[in-house]
Amino acid sequence: MEIQAQKAVVLLSGGLDSATVLSMAQAQGFDCYALSFNYSQRSTSELHAAARVARAAGVPHRVMEIDLSLFGGSALTDTTIDVPQDTTSGIPLTYVPARNTVFLSLALAWAEVLDARAIFIGVNAVDYSGYPDCRQEYISAFQAMANLATRAGVEGFELTVHTPLIDLTKAQIIAAGVGLGVRYDDTVSCYQADDLGAACGRCDSCRIRKIGFLQAGVPDPTHYVGMDD
Amino acid sequence: MEIQAQKAVVLLSGGLDSATVLSMAQAQGFDCYALSFNYSQRSTSELHAAARVARAAGVPHRVMEIDLSLFGGSALTDTTIDVPQDTTSGIPLTYVPARNTVFLSLALAWAEVLDARAIFIGVNAVDYSGYPDCRQEYISAFQAMANLATRAGVEGFELTVHTPLIDLTKAQIIAAGVGLGVRYDDTVSCYQADDLGAACGRCDSCRIRKIGFLQAGVPDPTHYVGMDD
Repeated sequence: MEIQAQKAVVLLSGGLDSATVLSMAQAQGFDCYALSFNYSQRSTSELHAAARVARAAGVPHRVMEIDLSLFGGSALTDTTIDVPQDTTSGIPLTYVPARNTVFLSLALAWAEVLDARAIFIGVNAVDYSGYPDCRQEYISAFQAMANLATRAGVEGFELTVHTPLIDLTKAQIIAAGVGLGVRYDDTVSCYQADDLGAACGRCDSCRIRKIGFLQAGVPDPTHYVGMDD
Repeated sequence: MEIQAQKAVVLLSGGLDSATVLSMAQAQGFDCYALSFNYSQRSTSELHAAARVARAAGVPHRVMEIDLSLFGGSALTDTTIDVPQDTTSGIPLTYVPARNTVFLSLALAWAEVLDARAIFIGVNAVDYSGYPDCRQEYISAFQAMANLATRAGVEGFELTVHTPLIDLTKAQIIAAGVGLGVRYDDTVSCYQADDLGAACGRCDSCRIRKIGFLQAGVPDPTHYVGMDD
């Protein structure tokens, strides 16, 4: 008798981390459904990257449009709220209020429709220690809430939010992904990638990624602007 | 010295319940910001009603587009998942997976931008006892999660999810609203209201509303289809 694989919704940004998460979820035997969001602060090339990654993994992929700019954007671009005093907390310019909560909630909606008991998200507490919604404590609270929110929860099916990257360094993530055959040239991490997905090589995200490949001892497959192909 | 009113995000559907909640929040002294959603299963007249209610209350109002049909709609319209066996659980045809979680998450995003410490939602455990996400237990779990999700939470500002209707009957809600001056003729509760907002008078939502006015001893101001105006 064939045992049917458990379904999982995997949040897929098109970046290095979430591509690795998708491979990890597949390696664990999950039947994966990839979910991306087109929100104001995304570059189109990230969504193209997400589509490439999903296609390479052979999983269904949905992109939801969500206009978070309706609320006035992030704390760092909106003059009606105070910019945090503590600039050492490392909140990146791409910070979007309650973003992981919004994304996980929509993943939960799809999980309920699919009857999936797993959601995978590539949060990382190492690179983003300043982010409240990248901590295990937050993820556990979301999971507890999710198990009260849905019919599945009430009927006693436990939904789990998997965060396989939460305590890994970028180099560890890359080493794991390379072992699983992730094609990192498909991914885009740059905050200001051009339309073809070429990275600037200078922004925070590029810098962290570049050092990650260096420390992992893996040749960096990133397409940088101005590189000959 | 003038004390500035605390801000609150109020989820406003255009129906009777959320219009009452908005009045209650204002009566408690909150500076309210109304949030509505345009998702697949909404009738346009409900959104018009929400706009009328917000205008009458003199509060800012945002409508977010959100295509929940991307996930295949509800359990009762999607053939790829099982229809629940227990038909006595009272799950209405308008059920949308994880809806309150999605709505509360987006309210949280706006609350964070506004630096608001309160979210109001008109969930009701009396009419919707079959709904997992209308229970106090769920709301408390959402609040706990929300206070871990955001910078505000980390900095020790407590966000509260207010559910003033949770234990009220429809008649009690109407009596409270009438006392606060809610103009119920502005609201639309009908699942199949026509473009002008006239109610069918026959669906579950109409039936519950009609009995509510009767039991509250308040003349029913609802515009029903075929009524002379």
